[in-house]
Amino acid sequence: LGGDSAGALRAGCAVELVHCYSLVHDDLPAMDDDDMRRGKPTVHKLHDDAMGVLVGDALLTLAFDVLADRRTAPSAARRLRLVRELAQGSGLGGMVGGQMLDLAAEGRYPAAHLPAGEAGVVLIQSMKTGALIRAACRMGAVLGSANAATMRAVDAYAVALGLAFQIKDDLLDVESDAATLGKAAGKDAEAGKATFVSLLGVAGAKARLDAATREGERALAGIGPQAGWLHALLGFNHARKS
Amino acid sequence: LGGDSAGALRAGCAVELVHCYSLVHDDLPAMDDDDMRRGKPTVHKLHDDAMGVLVGDALLTLAFDVLADRRTAPSAARRLRLVRELAQGSGLGGMVGGQMLDLAAEGRYPAAHLPAGEAGVVLIQSMKTGALIRAACRMGAVLGSANAATMRAVDAYAVALGLAFQIKDDLLDVESDAATLGKAAGKDAEAGKATFVSLLGVAGAKARLDAATREGERALAGIGPQAGWLHALLGFNHARKS
Repeated sequence: LGGDSAGALRAGCAVELVHCYSLVHDDLPAMDDDDMRRGKPTVHKLHDDAMGVLVGDALLTLAFDVLADRRTAPSAARRLRLVRELAQGSGLGGMVGGQMLDLAAEGRYPAAHLPAGEAGVVLIQSMKTGALIRAACRMGAVLGSANAATMRAVDAYAVALGLAFQIKDDLLDVESDAATLGKAAGKDAEAGKATFVSLLGVAGAKARLDAATREGERALAGIGPQAGWLHALLGFNHARKS
Repeated sequence: LGGDSAGALRAGCAVELVHCYSLVHDDLPAMDDDDMRRGKPTVHKLHDDAMGVLVGDALLTLAFDVLADRRTAPSAARRLRLVRELAQGSGLGGMVGGQMLDLAAEGRYPAAHLPAGEAGVVLIQSMKTGALIRAACRMGAVLGSANAATMRAVDAYAVALGLAFQIKDDLLDVESDAATLGKAAGKDAEAGKATFVSLLGVAGAKARLDAATREGERALAGIGPQAGWLHALLGFNHARKS
């Protein structure tokens, strides 16, 4: 969408700092209890649980320092929009709240307000993984000086991409193995967790993945030839093996 | 220092959100393993460890959203300064890094770079508890449109207040009980932790508390009669029972 690529890289780093913090905390024994991540021992395996908590906290905090730094964008108003997009996408109304609902769906907390069946799975997905993907896309649009119509198109694209990402993740969890994934496989089925695959079956989930991918493509139609990378991301997600 | 009190209250809330997140994470079994805080069960006791991690994450994230909101200050540049002060005071170079060093001092990680004796205790204090107090004071000065000289005075005051706070905390840990503190007492001695009391003795720590309090008073001399609350805080800390 145009805009300064050095600033966009810094904003991308802030998103990745939040993403990494969420993985370090998710891997803790208190949460998903994973020993491996990206083919390497998780932080708490390498050190201890306290270090896992603190490393995550430090990464999250650094993300906002990076965004607020003048080098991310000359416009102060724009840097503040980035801070708010990231905070809202990753906080209680987004990623963290989604993770809470996900644990509630596993039966760890009362989940009175969680819709049953696919609606619940979609709600959790839209918050737990979707909201950060959406924030990342919207932050790019902010830095690209997107007008309201382009922002709406990017937002609709991001919602579809987030959904496609989660469906693909659920498919890989049943179709892949730990060596390919760089993390444990089959964990969802083991935990008896409702996923797009458990709800729709493998064929049904693949059809939903195709539909979400097409929906993302359609949303990009309003943006035009600038949207090459965004198209590529949909294809990358559809084909990814880990 | 003047400035809008509604905005200052929001900035204060952001500091308190960070403070609360740090307590929720510190209380986790992976860290200090405390069952009580402010006379009530800690978050992980009431729910579970995962909820303790997630509640802390949500509080931390919300702090930056609150600061970036227009209602905190009309000036975008000023809101960004608040974001950076809080991120730097609470992140790896401040509170979180100080907590890592504190655990290293307990022997949980290699602490090759930690100075021995009082210098190490002062370094940990200045990061673990001092940096957030300092950020809070500096944020107030930012919102009060402080000039460079006033900012220097506030900063020197905040460093002294942070030191006085930690010495008082160390004294309370040996002189008070759980009912008064609202949390467990005697934990430092039990953990064999170096504190101002273990290094200087009770009488020596009290003398250092007096000296730090006087140092804070001296720093305020440059600010004048506006500094009433800041004076009061030094007195409050000196006399507090919990």
